Amino acid sequence: MDVFEAIRERRSIRQYQAKAVPEEKLTQILEAGRWAPSSGNRQPWKFIVIKDEEVKSKLASIAPFGRFIDKAPVGIAVVIDPQGSSHPVEDGAAATQNILLAAHALDLGACWIGSYGSDYEGRAREILGIPHDRRILSLISLGYPTESPEKGRVELSELVSCDRYADK
Amino acid sequence: MDVFEAIRERRSIRQYQAKAVPEEKLTQILEAGRWAPSSGNRQPWKFIVIKDEEVKSKLASIAPFGRFIDKAPVGIAVVIDPQGSSHPVEDGAAATQNILLAAHALDLGACWIGSYGSDYEGRAREILGIPHDRRILSLISLGYPTESPEKGRVELSELVSCDRYADK
Repeated sequence: MDVFEAIRERRSIRQYQAKAVPEEKLTQILEAGRWAPSSGNRQPWKFIVIKDEEVKSKLASIAPFGRFIDKAPVGIAVVIDPQGSSHPVEDGAAATQNILLAAHALDLGACWIGSYGSDYEGRAREILGIPHDRRILSLISLGYPTESPEKGRVELSELVSCDRYADK
Repeated sequence: MDVFEAIRERRSIRQYQAKAVPEEKLTQILEAGRWAPSSGNRQPWKFIVIKDEEVKSKLASIAPFGRFIDKAPVGIAVVIDPQGSSHPVEDGAAATQNILLAAHALDLGACWIGSYGSDYEGRAREILGIPHDRRILSLISLGYPTESPEKGRVELSELVSCDRYADK
């Protein structure tokens, strides 16, 4: 899929078919995360692939915004080392965005559940056995979509200024 | 360009031809930023397109890691509203990553200069007239490349675990 099409057409998908995600696609998606840029190419990330029903169910029970993660065949946690680069949050977000684009390009749907600094990050960390010196940047739910939601964006003319900040 | 090719082949480019960036390409690149996901679709970002030589030169003079920004025909500052969503840093990073992928797909080169929380963010903010309640998430230098650097990544087998965190 063309990169502009992937960027333009990707949406947050929260409803999934029961159909499993093929291993080959999952690998391609994780590869996309792996090739994200990071500050000083430090790659301060790990990916946890979550398929165990009990683990997904525990995560869903503590995450008010991620309660659909147990409805997804697969979850991915992007875990960062906060000391691992000068900009670990940005690095983990770039990896997450690559994962979302790759999922869409493979006809899968995904939703970025923002975790870093949220009320439930600590509890999710316990469930996933994540050490105290690591953080969950994002949880991503993943599966074949059963919905195709529409979302708009603010026009470019409202966002762009030249050489100096302008509030429009 | 295929999205996987863009993700896999994109590199940080710090050396540029003098050739200008066509307006049409610049618009496509900013569009890619605009269509990034954000927490609650709040889109807490603005983009400053920097072409003025004096502005670029001032930025280069204060930024130890961004000293090549005055060598690039164009700079883009991704400015975020820290109160604008629940995860503004991640949102701005997703927009930045989209911009980098779009640039590569259009045969341009770009470099993500991490700015948020850096020593020079405050001075860059002054130069660009950015109010105190807004932050610079990233500066991006942009132009036709004169280099094609190679950078590797840690293997996927070192990064991925199943259902539980594992340090490998």
